[in-house]
Amino acid sequence: MGCFEVLDTDSRSAARQGLLTTAHGRVETPVFMPVGSSGAVKGVTPQQLRRTGATIVLANTYHLLLRPGVATIERLGGLHRFMSWDGPSLTDSGGYQIFSLSPLTKIDDEGVEFASHIDGTRIRLNAEEATQIQNRLGADIIMCFDECTPYPCDEHRLRKAVERTIRWARRCKRAHHNTSQLLFGIVQGGIDSQLRGCCASEIVRLGFDGYAIGGLSVGEGHKNMIETVEHTAALLPENAPRYLMGVGTPADIIAAVGAGVDMFDCVLPTRNGRNAFAFTEAGPLRLRNSSHINDGGPIDPACDCYCCKNFSRAAIRHYFNTSEMLGPILVSLHNLRFYQRLMAKIRQALAGGRFSDWAKQQLRQYSGYR
Amino acid sequence: MGCFEVLDTDSRSAARQGLLTTAHGRVETPVFMPVGSSGAVKGVTPQQLRRTGATIVLANTYHLLLRPGVATIERLGGLHRFMSWDGPSLTDSGGYQIFSLSPLTKIDDEGVEFASHIDGTRIRLNAEEATQIQNRLGADIIMCFDECTPYPCDEHRLRKAVERTIRWARRCKRAHHNTSQLLFGIVQGGIDSQLRGCCASEIVRLGFDGYAIGGLSVGEGHKNMIETVEHTAALLPENAPRYLMGVGTPADIIAAVGAGVDMFDCVLPTRNGRNAFAFTEAGPLRLRNSSHINDGGPIDPACDCYCCKNFSRAAIRHYFNTSEMLGPILVSLHNLRFYQRLMAKIRQALAGGRFSDWAKQQLRQYSGYR
Repeated sequence: MGCFEVLDTDSRSAARQGLLTTAHGRVETPVFMPVGSSGAVKGVTPQQLRRTGATIVLANTYHLLLRPGVATIERLGGLHRFMSWDGPSLTDSGGYQIFSLSPLTKIDDEGVEFASHIDGTRIRLNAEEATQIQNRLGADIIMCFDECTPYPCDEHRLRKAVERTIRWARRCKRAHHNTSQLLFGIVQGGIDSQLRGCCASEIVRLGFDGYAIGGLSVGEGHKNMIETVEHTAALLPENAPRYLMGVGTPADIIAAVGAGVDMFDCVLPTRNGRNAFAFTEAGPLRLRNSSHINDGGPIDPACDCYCCKNFSRAAIRHYFNTSEMLGPILVSLHNLRFYQRLMAKIRQALAGGRFSDWAKQQLRQYSGYR
Repeated sequence: MGCFEVLDTDSRSAARQGLLTTAHGRVETPVFMPVGSSGAVKGVTPQQLRRTGATIVLANTYHLLLRPGVATIERLGGLHRFMSWDGPSLTDSGGYQIFSLSPLTKIDDEGVEFASHIDGTRIRLNAEEATQIQNRLGADIIMCFDECTPYPCDEHRLRKAVERTIRWARRCKRAHHNTSQLLFGIVQGGIDSQLRGCCASEIVRLGFDGYAIGGLSVGEGHKNMIETVEHTAALLPENAPRYLMGVGTPADIIAAVGAGVDMFDCVLPTRNGRNAFAFTEAGPLRLRNSSHINDGGPIDPACDCYCCKNFSRAAIRHYFNTSEMLGPILVSLHNLRFYQRLMAKIRQALAGGRFSDWAKQQLRQYSGYR
C-alpha cells in the first residue's frame, strides 16, 4: 500500500510522472511546494495560493516550534486548520533551520541544542522530539530529523553528519506513531558521492514512505548539485517519491526532474516576489527598474495569473516605488503561478513523451536564473 | 438628468436611500468608499476588495500627482485601468493632503505652493490645474479644489478659506471639460454654522453634480462634527448626493446618515487593519493582545468575511507576532467587510422604515470606537 504511483517514465532520462496520495488528497508529481514557514505563504491567502495551482504546501517545524508553539497549534486543531489549508501538507524536521538560522548550536549523538533566533532561548531537539512535534502538528508528510552540513565541509564532519542522520532516521521511524502521516527519510552526504551512496543505502534499508535528498543548494552550485542528485536519486526505490529539499531555480528543478526527482520546495517565488523580482519565460524581470515606468504590458504576456491579467509593469513598479503592499503581493502571486505553470509544463512534457528535448531547450532558456 | 435618485427617505431623520449613477456603474447609497491613496487599497487586491462588497473606491490626486504622475496614468489608459478597478471611482482634489501632509505650504488667491512630502520638490496647484489633473486621471467623480483649515482655526482664517473655496469652486466648474465625470462642490467653514451656511449657499448657487462637506474629522470631535453636518446637509439640494469627506468611525457614519449624508470615505478599515485593530459588533478587538494566543474563534462570529470564515484569532495574532503579511491582509479584509456590512445594514434599516430606532441602538453599541 504505497503512497506513490509512477504513471509514466521518460525513455531518455530518469524523469517520471507520478501520483502521491496523502491523507488530505492526491498530488500530481513532479510537484512544487510553496513554503509557508510560519504557517502562511508570505503575502498571499490560502485561497489565492490555491488559485496559483498549488496542491501541497510546506511549513517549517523550526519556525512553528518557536512561534506559536506546538501546543497552540495542536489545541487549535492542527496545522491544516491553523493555516486554513485543507490540502496536502508537509513539515520539515527543523534540522535545516537549526543549522542555518540558529547561533550557538551544539550537536552530539543524542541531538541538538540551539538558541532561538528570536529571543535566544536555548532549546534541545532530538530525533524523537522532532518526530513527536511533527506528529502533533499534523502535516500529511513529515521528515526525519537530520544533520545538515554547510558547503564546503570537511570529510570528517560530513561523515559524522551522515552517521548521525542514519542513526536519527532509525530513531525517527521508531518514534513515529501517527499512521495518517507519511514519514520521509533524508539522504545527506554533501557532494561526496561515496557518502551519499552509503547514506542512501542505509536510509533505504530502514524503509520510509518517501526519500529526500537534503543538504544541497547550500552553495555547491548547479553542476555539483545536479551530479549529486543524479547519483543519489538513482539509488532510491523507484516506487517511492523523491524529494529534493529547498530547491530551487527553474533550471535546478528541470534538471533534477531529469534525474528522477518528484518533489521540490523553495522560497524563491515569494522571497523574490517581495523584492520585485519576477520570473518570466524571457528571463528575470526587476520591477523596480525605471525602464518599466511607462510600460503598459504585463510582467509576462504568456502568463495567466491574476497579476498579469490585471496589472501593468508600470503599476507594479509604482506599487514598489510607493511601498504599497500590493507590489509584493502581486509579484509573489505571479512567481507562485510561474512555478506551478513550470511544473505543469514538465508534467505535460512527460505525458507527451518529449521531456528530454523540452528540458534541453528550457535549460538554455532559464540559464539567466542560475 | 441628475446623477442621483432618492429611493427612500426616513420619516424621523434626514436619512435617505439613493442610487448614484456614474460612467462606470451605479452605486447604492449610503455608501462607504475604501481609500486607495496611491491607486491601491492597502493590502488587498481589487478582486478581494470587490468581494468585501465595495462598489466605489477613492484615490488621492495628491499622491498620484507625486507618484507616478498624471502623465503616466494617462498614458496607461487612466486611473481605472491603472489600478485594475472597473467600477465607479472618485478622486479628491489634492487640497486636503496639501494642507495635512506638505510642509512649507503657501496659499494665495491664485492657488497653493507646497513641497512634496516625498522629496521636497516645490509644486504649484490651482483650481484649473487640480481640475485638469482629475480630468486626465479619469475617475467617475472628481472634486473641486478647496482650502482645508485645521481645528481649531481662528475666524479670520476660516473666512478667508471659505471665500477662496467658493472662488476656486467657480474656477473648477469653468475648467471642468470631461462630461463623463461628475464634479462635486465642497462646503468648508469649520464648525462655524454661519460660515458653513454662507459657503453652502454659494456652492449650491454655482451648481454641481453633488456636494461634499469637507474640513471635518480634523479634531473637532463627534458632537461638533455631527452638529455641523446636520446644519450643512440641510442646506444642500435634496436631489443631489451628499458626501462627508474623510469620515469616519461607525458611529460618525450612522449619525451622519441620519443627517442626510449619502457618501463616506475613510482610511480607518485599512489603517487599523494593518495595526491589528479589528472592528466587530461587540467593539474593538486588538489582535496582538495575548488573550488571543489560544483563541480558536474568529474575529467576529457574526461576520461572513474570508478572514472570519477561515482564520482563528490565534492564527491572526500569530501572523502579527511573526510579521507575516497575512496578518495585515486578513484584518484589512475583515475591516473593509465590516464597513460594507455596516452600510448594508444602514440601507436595510432605511428600506425597512426603521432607521431611527436602529441607529439609536447602534450608536450606543459603537460608542467604543469614538
